[in-house]
Amino acid sequence: ATRDWPVPPPLVACAILSVGAALAVNAMIPRVSATFIQCRLMGADLAKRNKPVLPESMGLVCGLVYLLTLVLLLPVVFMTWSTHSGSMTMHKFATFLSALLSIQSMLFLGFADDVLNIRWRHKIFLPALAALPMLLVYGIESGVTYVVVPLPLRAYLGRIVDLGLLYYLYMALVAIFCTNSINILAGINGVEAGQSLVLAVSLVINSTAILASSANPETREIHAQSLYLLLPFIGVTAALLKWNWCPARAFVGDTYTYFAGMVFAVCGILGHYSKTLLLFFAPQIVNFVLSVPQLFHVVPCPRHRLPTLHPSGTTLVYSRCRVPRAQLSCLGAFVLRVLAVCGLAKVETTNEWVTFSNLTLINAVLVVADQWFGRTSGLEEGTLAAIVLGIQVVGSLIAFVVRYALVHLFYP
Amino acid sequence: ATRDWPVPPPLVACAILSVGAALAVNAMIPRVSATFIQCRLMGADLAKRNKPVLPESMGLVCGLVYLLTLVLLLPVVFMTWSTHSGSMTMHKFATFLSALLSIQSMLFLGFADDVLNIRWRHKIFLPALAALPMLLVYGIESGVTYVVVPLPLRAYLGRIVDLGLLYYLYMALVAIFCTNSINILAGINGVEAGQSLVLAVSLVINSTAILASSANPETREIHAQSLYLLLPFIGVTAALLKWNWCPARAFVGDTYTYFAGMVFAVCGILGHYSKTLLLFFAPQIVNFVLSVPQLFHVVPCPRHRLPTLHPSGTTLVYSRCRVPRAQLSCLGAFVLRVLAVCGLAKVETTNEWVTFSNLTLINAVLVVADQWFGRTSGLEEGTLAAIVLGIQVVGSLIAFVVRYALVHLFYP
Ligand SMILES: [Mg+2]
Ligand SMILES: [Mg+2]
Repeated sequence: ATRDWPVPPPLVACAILSVGAALAVNAMIPRVSATFIQCRLMGADLAKRNKPVLPESMGLVCGLVYLLTLVLLLPVVFMTWSTHSGSMTMHKFATFLSALLSIQSMLFLGFADDVLNIRWRHKIFLPALAALPMLLVYGIESGVTYVVVPLPLRAYLGRIVDLGLLYYLYMALVAIFCTNSINILAGINGVEAGQSLVLAVSLVINSTAILASSANPETREIHAQSLYLLLPFIGVTAALLKWNWCPARAFVGDTYTYFAGMVFAVCGILGHYSKTLLLFFAPQIVNFVLSVPQLFHVVPCPRHRLPTLHPSGTTLVYSRCRVPRAQLSCLGAFVLRVLAVCGLAKVETTNEWVTFSNLTLINAVLVVADQWFGRTSGLEEGTLAAIVLGIQVVGSLIAFVVRYALVHLFYP
Repeated sequence: ATRDWPVPPPLVACAILSVGAALAVNAMIPRVSATFIQCRLMGADLAKRNKPVLPESMGLVCGLVYLLTLVLLLPVVFMTWSTHSGSMTMHKFATFLSALLSIQSMLFLGFADDVLNIRWRHKIFLPALAALPMLLVYGIESGVTYVVVPLPLRAYLGRIVDLGLLYYLYMALVAIFCTNSINILAGINGVEAGQSLVLAVSLVINSTAILASSANPETREIHAQSLYLLLPFIGVTAALLKWNWCPARAFVGDTYTYFAGMVFAVCGILGHYSKTLLLFFAPQIVNFVLSVPQLFHVVPCPRHRLPTLHPSGTTLVYSRCRVPRAQLSCLGAFVLRVLAVCGLAKVETTNEWVTFSNLTLINAVLVVADQWFGRTSGLEEGTLAAIVLGIQVVGSLIAFVVRYALVHLFYP
């Protein structure tokens, strides 16, 4: 009766529940749309000719169905744990509950942000607040705060470094990064849910591979737990994407982007694979680095940076920002020159004005399409979203190579 | 080092944090009010002459500060548990986390209701959904589903009856009752937060008395846990009441009433004193029973049943509902006659119309004031709220007498 099953039994239950979650979200979104619009949870789709008003914050439906799915999974997960590992059961159980608490906190704060328009300088720290239950329980339960040092640094630091409290700061920063980086790679239909779907599928492949190859019960357990968190997420996200893909009939809202980022952060932190996680976030990192000059006001930042509609009304072109030449700092001018040389931004300078494409990954794609492939009238929104998701897929493939082929250069 | 302290150390930390929570809520409410109104979380105070617009859903501030307080308390609570009771620690810890999950779920769903105006027939079941994490963990952890049978029934049922799944249904109903019954004893400034404050203080007195008198470590632990949940609640509620007392500068919203009801339900369920809890809810039960004819449409129910402003503009009088005499069912006419005889409703019958005071505890107070004390021009809102809270206090005193003096008639 205690034979070790190759597939943990809760995974089967989890897969079934995830399909149910997808069907539920798919059925609910059209049913609640009118209510959302009535209650002013709505926004105009600026990338369409007629600027239709769509319900906003559909991540609320996803998140609530997701949490209900995981709560229903609790008894199944617990029963397997108590058969397999005895005294460790409650430790894992408390950790799992704290993960749900953190995910729910983030979903809640994301929704509060959609309703109350919390200021940027406040909301950037909300993920750390939401991660608090998980971090505290992590400290109480395992308290592992050491990291294995990469080979090139071992001569200086030794094989293992205990980061102590810094490790908690690191985990809080992972939560802040995951949530906000998904939130800023946004602005066209399908891109928030799409990138999250690619990320989740990549992490599922990673955990499944480890589950299939590792004999260490602790490692297996940790990655099974990641799958419990990720499969229902894939379910609700796939259903959301169906309604959010171009032409969108619903927007995801910060509710969704914050929720999605927190699911990933929780998986990476509790699964002890936060470095691997960040490898998969390469496109988000690129988008963030590209955005830094505007986010930190080295060059001016308009309120909206999403692509604009081409006069033809069927394609999107990169949006631009104009600044009086005299007001551009030396550093700003230098940054723009570097990005222009790399082909990631289009910069035009007259005697009085400097005009540059807004510094985001999505605009960079349009700049490249314009400069290298002669798509001067831009790209259709669906094509553009597909390219961004393609970049995410390529990023994941590179991440797998780095993680499993090149890792030996850094870790024995 | 393992000497049993008369006062559990986390209680000291909890008391300090609760004061901090009260100060935080008190400082935050005026600061967020403008934002809430901007984002259309607002309502008109109909019981004032100029019907001022006030920010709604201030329970959101209370609830978030409350949850943060309890999360910060987690490490302290855990450390005491692990010193005192070893293997039981994680069981209790998981239960405590599931309680936080349920309270947060209810707060979240209450806020979603304030934003989205969920229909009555749906929202009445939301508390059962929010209680799910706690009930599942309860089942996994202790799974105690038997009840001790009162003396008069033992001849038929035996000393103990195992209710099995019915016990979970009972707990879900406790959650539904606690939340909805507070939500419908509402409508004038200060009454939602006020009744919750009286209830919380009553439960704190109850648990403190048991903590001071019991030597059973399990009983002590269970009531200490109630205090951890109730003291921060008293803190945030006191601060809210300051801003919600007549003349109110903020409304509490369903966010608050649902949150408050769930805190009580969680305390009663995890503390195994749900019957005692329901004793303290006597005024809510009276209000619910009074409301049943209107809630179930035995007699007509208008959209608002709160008292109305007297033409003088300074006092409130009971609101009334008028129905064509021919449309009133026999049962409806009978119910109204009984209530009129009891002095709890004012009923006036002409040849064509029947006019009756709306069937709520608050209107009943105004009817009694009018009929017995000649207050024909009603009562000031603050006086009325104070009388309702007075009823709650008297109810608590009677509950204490029943629980500790008369209990021996039912249990040995
Ligand atoms: Mg956003
Ligand atoms: Mg209400």
